[in-house]
Amino acid sequence: MSAKTSPLAPAAFPDLPQVAGVRLATGMTGLRYKGRDDLLWAEFAPGTVVAGCFTTSATRAAPVRWCETALAGGRARALVVNAGNANAFTGPTGARAVAAEVDGAAAVLGCAREEVFVASTGVIGVPLDPKPIVDMMADLSGRASDAADAWAPAAKSIMTTDTFPKGASATVTIGGRSVSVVGFAKGSGMIAPNMATMLGFVFTDAAIGATLAQRLLARGVDRSFNAITVDGDTSTNDCVMLFATGAAGNPALAEEDADGAAFAEALEAVLSDLARQVVRDGEGATKFVTLRITGAEDDGAARRIGLTVANSPLVKTAIAGSDANWGRIVAALGRSGERVAEDRLRIHIGGVLVAENGAVHPDYDEKAYVAGYMKGQEIDIAVDVGVGEGVATVWTCDLTHGYIDINADYRS
Amino acid sequence: MSAKTSPLAPAAFPDLPQVAGVRLATGMTGLRYKGRDDLLWAEFAPGTVVAGCFTTSATRAAPVRWCETALAGGRARALVVNAGNANAFTGPTGARAVAAEVDGAAAVLGCAREEVFVASTGVIGVPLDPKPIVDMMADLSGRASDAADAWAPAAKSIMTTDTFPKGASATVTIGGRSVSVVGFAKGSGMIAPNMATMLGFVFTDAAIGATLAQRLLARGVDRSFNAITVDGDTSTNDCVMLFATGAAGNPALAEEDADGAAFAEALEAVLSDLARQVVRDGEGATKFVTLRITGAEDDGAARRIGLTVANSPLVKTAIAGSDANWGRIVAALGRSGERVAEDRLRIHIGGVLVAENGAVHPDYDEKAYVAGYMKGQEIDIAVDVGVGEGVATVWTCDLTHGYIDINADYRS
Repeated sequence: MSAKTSPLAPAAFPDLPQVAGVRLATGMTGLRYKGRDDLLWAEFAPGTVVAGCFTTSATRAAPVRWCETALAGGRARALVVNAGNANAFTGPTGARAVAAEVDGAAAVLGCAREEVFVASTGVIGVPLDPKPIVDMMADLSGRASDAADAWAPAAKSIMTTDTFPKGASATVTIGGRSVSVVGFAKGSGMIAPNMATMLGFVFTDAAIGATLAQRLLARGVDRSFNAITVDGDTSTNDCVMLFATGAAGNPALAEEDADGAAFAEALEAVLSDLARQVVRDGEGATKFVTLRITGAEDDGAARRIGLTVANSPLVKTAIAGSDANWGRIVAALGRSGERVAEDRLRIHIGGVLVAENGAVHPDYDEKAYVAGYMKGQEIDIAVDVGVGEGVATVWTCDLTHGYIDINADYRS
Repeated sequence: MSAKTSPLAPAAFPDLPQVAGVRLATGMTGLRYKGRDDLLWAEFAPGTVVAGCFTTSATRAAPVRWCETALAGGRARALVVNAGNANAFTGPTGARAVAAEVDGAAAVLGCAREEVFVASTGVIGVPLDPKPIVDMMADLSGRASDAADAWAPAAKSIMTTDTFPKGASATVTIGGRSVSVVGFAKGSGMIAPNMATMLGFVFTDAAIGATLAQRLLARGVDRSFNAITVDGDTSTNDCVMLFATGAAGNPALAEEDADGAAFAEALEAVLSDLARQVVRDGEGATKFVTLRITGAEDDGAARRIGLTVANSPLVKTAIAGSDANWGRIVAALGRSGERVAEDRLRIHIGGVLVAENGAVHPDYDEKAYVAGYMKGQEIDIAVDVGVGEGVATVWTCDLTHGYIDINADYRS
C-alpha cells in the first residue's frame, strides 16, 4: 500500500446517484489488511440482470472461474469482493473457498447459488480462508444501504495498491424514465488489456435483457479497460461486471435501437472514465498519457500499435524524464508487428508536428514549445502511421521510480 | 552513459585470440561523444564470407537496409560502425549518409560497394553527418591491426549505455586445423528478442560457404540474442554479423557434417556468451536471471512463455526487491497466450520446489532457503508448464531504479 495519493488523482471522489435495487455494505475481515474495510457486499433486487467480462489468463483465479459459469444464468442477487488475497493459484482449496462464499451468500439471501458472484484481488498463491467472510454476511446484509453515500466506502473497500477510490456515473433518459449508470473500480498495477488486476463493477436501474447487456458491456470494455495499460501485465483476477436492476421501469432494452444506443453511450462513458482513473492511479505514475493512433490498417491494428508504444519501457521512462524522445516512439511503432509506412509517419506531441515523411520536421524546434510541454502532467501524443483508416485511443502513464518502489516490496 | 560498471560485469575483458584476415582500428569522430573512440573500422581479407541477422522492425535504420541488400553478395571487405547516432528515422538523408560511408570504404580498399557493411547505434531521428567518418577511413585502414590486443578497443568503440565491453571466443579443430571464433557485442537497453539495440560481430578464420554460414548464424542467434530480454524493446538497428576469412585453411565447410556441427557449436557458444553479457549489462541490472521452461507444447512455445515471464515488469521488480513472488510468475505464465496446465505447473526457485499441481507445495518454507537465495545476484527459476516436451532457456535481469535513472535522461 502506498501512503501518498497519485499526483494525477481527481480532486475528490465524485457524487454518485442512487441506483434503486442496489444495496451496499462493507466489512473488515482482518484477513490481510488491518484497520480498514476489505470486504464488499452488494445485494440486488430479484430479477437483476448480470453481464461480465473476465481475464483471459490461463491461470485465472477460482472466483473468475465460478463467475464465468454462473454468468450463464444471467441473473444476480449478490456480489462479494475481498481485497488482499486474490484466491488465485490456490488449487482445489481455492475452489472450495469460493463455494463456501457462494453457499453463505445464497443462504443469507435465499437465492440460487448461480445468482451469487464473487471477486478477489490481492496476493496470488496464498490460500483464502472463507470463514471470516462468510461469518460476516448476515450482518452485512442487515445493514446494506442503497443511499448515495454508500458508494464511496464500497469503492474504498476493494482497493489494494490503489491510492484513491475510483467512481463514475452517467444518467440518460430512456422511454421517458431517467436511468442511472454508476460504477466503481480498482486497479493500479498489473494493468494491461484483457483486464489486468482490475476489478470494475457497474450498476444501473435500467431494464435490459441479458444478451444485450453482455454485448454492450463487452464492447464498452474493449474501448475502455482493454485500451489502457500501466505495465503490460495482465492478471489472474480481472473482471468487469454489470448489474441491471430494472427498477427504473423503462421498457426493457433488448436491441440497439435509439434507446439501446443511448444506454450504450452512458455505459461506455462510465467504463471509460473508470479506466482512465485506473491509469491516473498507475503505480508511481506522474504523467497521464493519451495516445491517438490514426491511419492504421484497421481499428484493431491501431489499438495494437498504440499499446506497443504505451507498453514500451523506453517510451515510458522518457516521458517520466520529460524528454520528448520521439525516436523511441518510432522504434516502438516499428516493432508493433502491424503495418506502418515509415515514409508517411506523422507524429504530433502536444499538437506540434514533430516528424513526418520518415524524418523530423524541418521546422521542429523542440525548445520552442514541446520541451516545456513535456514537463506537464497531461501528455497528448498523436501518430498517423499512413497505411489505412484504422483509429484508436490508448491511455497509459509514465514509468517512474515510484513503480519500482511499490513493486519491489508490495508482497513483503 | 552510465559511469558505474554493472555489478554483474565479468572481472575483465577476456583474452581473445587473433583471427587471421581480420584487421581492426578505432577512431574518434567527435560526432556525439567527446574524449572516446566512437568509430570502428574492420577490414577483411579478400574472399571473406559474410552472414547477417537483422532487426525485423518496420522502422529499421538506413544502415540495416543497406546491409540486407549487400548481404546478397555473400562477401565482405569492410565493416564500419559508429556509436552515438543510430541513423534511424532519418529519411533520404540517412540513406545518403550510408552511401557516403560505403563509397568511402570501397574507395579506400578498392572493393565493390556490396562488400562494405555499415552499422550504427545511438539516438534515433538525428541526421548523421558521414563526413567525419569518411575522412578518417584512409587513416584507420593504414593503422588497422590484426593483433590480439585490437579486440578490446574495438569492443569499447561501439558502446553506448554499456558499462563494460563484451567479448567472447572459442576454438575448435576442423580438418586438422585450429579454427578461432571471436566476437564482441554492445547492448544494454532496448534489448528484446528480434535483436534489440544490439550489435554483435563475430569473426572466424574458418573457411565456410555463405549459405551454411547464414543458416548457422540464424540458428545461433535464435538461441542466444533472441532468447534474452532486458526491457522488451526491440530496436531499429540490431544486427549480428559473421565474417569468415577462410585463413585457417580448413576444407571449406558446406554442410552440417561432423565438422559443420563442431563449428556450429563453437559459434553458438560465442553468441550465447555475448548475449548473456548483454543481459549482465542490462540497464540498471543488479541480478542475472536464468529462466528454464520445460513441458511446453514445443520449443517455440517454451521460449514465448519464458519471454513473457522475463518481460513482466512485476516479475522483474519483485526480483529487484529480492522477493520470491512466484505468484507473479504464475500470472505471467497465464497471460503468455501459450498452453499451460495450471493443475500441473511446477515451479522451482534456486532448485527448491515452490509450487506444483496448481498450488504452493505444502512443504515449501520460503524463509528456510529461498528468501535468502533471492538476495543473491544469480537467480535460477525453472518452470514446467505440464503440457508437452518443449523446452527453452531465457535470460533476463531485474528492473530497478537504475533502469529509470539511465532511461529518463539518456538523450538529454
